[in-house]
Amino acid sequence: MTLDPKDWDAFRTSAHAMLDASIDKLANAAEGRVWTPLPEAEKANIQANLPIQGVSHDVMQKQLESFLPYGVGNTHPRFFGWVHGAGAPSGLMAEIAAAAMNVNAGGRDHVAPVVERQVIEWSAEIMGLPADTSGLIVSGTSMATIIALKVARDQAMNTAQGQLVGYTSTQTHSCAAQAFDILGLGRDHLRKIACNDALEIDVHALQTAITADKAAGFVPFLIVGTAGAVNMGAIDDLEGLAEIAKAEGLWLHIDGAFGATAVIGEHARARLTGLSRADSLAFDFHKWLQVNYDAGCVLIRDEAAHRGSFSDRPEYLHGSERGLAGGAFWAVDYGPELSRGFRALKVWAHMKEHGVEALAAVIDRNIEQAQYLENLVKASPKLEMLAPVPLNICCFRYKFDGDNDALNEEIVVQLQESGIAVPSTTIINGQLAIRVNLTNHRTKESDLDMLVEAVLRIGGELT
Amino acid sequence: MTLDPKDWDAFRTSAHAMLDASIDKLANAAEGRVWTPLPEAEKANIQANLPIQGVSHDVMQKQLESFLPYGVGNTHPRFFGWVHGAGAPSGLMAEIAAAAMNVNAGGRDHVAPVVERQVIEWSAEIMGLPADTSGLIVSGTSMATIIALKVARDQAMNTAQGQLVGYTSTQTHSCAAQAFDILGLGRDHLRKIACNDALEIDVHALQTAITADKAAGFVPFLIVGTAGAVNMGAIDDLEGLAEIAKAEGLWLHIDGAFGATAVIGEHARARLTGLSRADSLAFDFHKWLQVNYDAGCVLIRDEAAHRGSFSDRPEYLHGSERGLAGGAFWAVDYGPELSRGFRALKVWAHMKEHGVEALAAVIDRNIEQAQYLENLVKASPKLEMLAPVPLNICCFRYKFDGDNDALNEEIVVQLQESGIAVPSTTIINGQLAIRVNLTNHRTKESDLDMLVEAVLRIGGELT
Repeated sequence: MTLDPKDWDAFRTSAHAMLDASIDKLANAAEGRVWTPLPEAEKANIQANLPIQGVSHDVMQKQLESFLPYGVGNTHPRFFGWVHGAGAPSGLMAEIAAAAMNVNAGGRDHVAPVVERQVIEWSAEIMGLPADTSGLIVSGTSMATIIALKVARDQAMNTAQGQLVGYTSTQTHSCAAQAFDILGLGRDHLRKIACNDALEIDVHALQTAITADKAAGFVPFLIVGTAGAVNMGAIDDLEGLAEIAKAEGLWLHIDGAFGATAVIGEHARARLTGLSRADSLAFDFHKWLQVNYDAGCVLIRDEAAHRGSFSDRPEYLHGSERGLAGGAFWAVDYGPELSRGFRALKVWAHMKEHGVEALAAVIDRNIEQAQYLENLVKASPKLEMLAPVPLNICCFRYKFDGDNDALNEEIVVQLQESGIAVPSTTIINGQLAIRVNLTNHRTKESDLDMLVEAVLRIGGELT
Repeated sequence: MTLDPKDWDAFRTSAHAMLDASIDKLANAAEGRVWTPLPEAEKANIQANLPIQGVSHDVMQKQLESFLPYGVGNTHPRFFGWVHGAGAPSGLMAEIAAAAMNVNAGGRDHVAPVVERQVIEWSAEIMGLPADTSGLIVSGTSMATIIALKVARDQAMNTAQGQLVGYTSTQTHSCAAQAFDILGLGRDHLRKIACNDALEIDVHALQTAITADKAAGFVPFLIVGTAGAVNMGAIDDLEGLAEIAKAEGLWLHIDGAFGATAVIGEHARARLTGLSRADSLAFDFHKWLQVNYDAGCVLIRDEAAHRGSFSDRPEYLHGSERGLAGGAFWAVDYGPELSRGFRALKVWAHMKEHGVEALAAVIDRNIEQAQYLENLVKASPKLEMLAPVPLNICCFRYKFDGDNDALNEEIVVQLQESGIAVPSTTIINGQLAIRVNLTNHRTKESDLDMLVEAVLRIGGELT
């Protein structure tokens, strides 16, 4: 009458078979195609009628195993699309433990809040923020941004009357404008400031905009700086933004989705000192730190402000000095989710098992690889760079006298469909770029050689 | 130089040991203490310095295994606190597969969007909504509510000028007011309507409030009905709310966190027909459906309205007819998260493996058990009921001529600390109740006998 297996030994056999198939996949992550479209037969299996009767563990194990080849492809060393981390096999162990515990990490006195709070403290230390910095483990930077900007909004509304406005650059990730929309501030009230040639926010233009808005009766309350812009990796002048925020009394939020974590390495650290001056900071563990999806973090300097924006526990969530309703850190006081899995466990285990030194080596190597690729592009008369390479992203294209955008889009589609490599595309200064993002611990220089060869071959065939 | 194991065989051994320990825990879920506080030595292990060097798989496996006893306790049959599901061992297999694939389920053309869309279709069918109902798999009802109410807000703002106001009952979960706060609508603009003796929303008072607000110049736009109130399980008159929503042109959102899923069983189905009339519906898979944490769902009748509130893809998320950037369903068009793990997989696998019939049997049995417990309480002269038992929650207390609230709070703490059982507490009509929630496939009637015996013994000792 329970949902437990009728035969535990048979279940154990199926579960171990599932684990072996999963480890086989990861042990061979560098082999074969990067991305393989889902076959129609698999699709039909998934799109079944609402199941009234169940199936055996054995049948389910084979079904799940059959899905393994049809993911996004980001475990493969030649996945260069968007900003996807590759994950690590060690994540399997943490996910198994978390599934067996099945905790709701919304609050109460058990292992999960202790682990989560420790991850937040490690994160604050890495970013140069005080040890008592507040924070929360979330699904990713989009959620982190909503939480951070709500706290900033609430603080501003405590003291100011009038229409709040914020500032960011044209290169900032869309999650900042979306947070303005969700929070009822209105997308248009996040001003998009122009960038310099390095695609960093123009600090003088920012100051001019703030002054103009104040003169027009708006209430500036927020600057959103970027540490690693999604298009090509630009890092804003964070120290410059911190100075303006201080002088103007504004909240400084930094979107460091992948870029902020480069502070643990050598190559970008000097440009990331301003992280320590943020009022709030959003970043992901599942990108450049290679934690399995999904896991991000919001850090907020002012714990009371953070708690004040989310803590409003009703009677059925009443805490207690003793018993299970005790515990110092209740996540529900710091974010909108009351039910939450034990996401912090895989982050804690990943950092503990690999250590910061090995994670930093991956980051620095990816930055070197982006420069290696830039050199390959510059060495080829058929290719041209479309943006500088400040971090780990290389935007280039195949040269063509005709419809450049259509040609390069087709090259990317053919690369993906061939299974050879997965870059993505973006638009830089109005031109479509082949965008190669390196946030993958499995990528080797030879993978980049293979990519460039394939781009030249496909480009040649198409022109 | 990668984060892959140097020795795959050794890693495989550690991972299988982790899996065996996890299955052992679940196979013995009914044994031992319900909740055990985290020992100080474990806490000290967790609260280590930022790790610079890593540790071996073997060390990490032992560390993770040592955490297993110190969760919330909701895998145990005598866990009755809050509204926690117990999860199912089958979830281990889906989580292993998901960890190995490590997809970002934000969009693109791969297995995850197909699985997610299928779970949404099954959910719509269960709830009696049309097959083309829109939706998204989210962490839980709190997130689902934010998404649904944003769509409702945006629709209202398209057509109306003035201060928007919504309506719900005093028993509705706090996530509705929190969504008002997050969305910039203001908590006070969600009017809390009084309840009848069954703690269901008073439909006449609701109509009166709407009329009064309109006369005062407010713009009513939303009714939030409840299917299974968190305090004691009340189900609002959903058909009555649907009639008012229709007559007044308001959006009907239903918070069905756990209660909505009772529509698959026999006992509550007749009171849940109104679910099919919702404009939006929020519910959890990880509560009464026993999917592992976390997994919830938002369903929204109007797909265009849903997409219009969240779809604003920038150039770096540009879709494509072909290649990996293809795919019909991009989750980023329906919610705020751009990075998302493959949460839908465990829901799909759970529904497929167990089937609706077995899941319904668990729900109906829990409802019968709540009535069984009510009878035990009523049969004891030392105990008294504090609320009706419309569903799966029983609120009662030990009778006492002194400080009733303090006594019953102490009884609950001692129950938790003894390891015998974990109820929680709440306030019903100003009085503290021992609150027993039954959303657990492992609970037997004998567990409830044991609970009542322990309450009587502890109550007797304390008075």
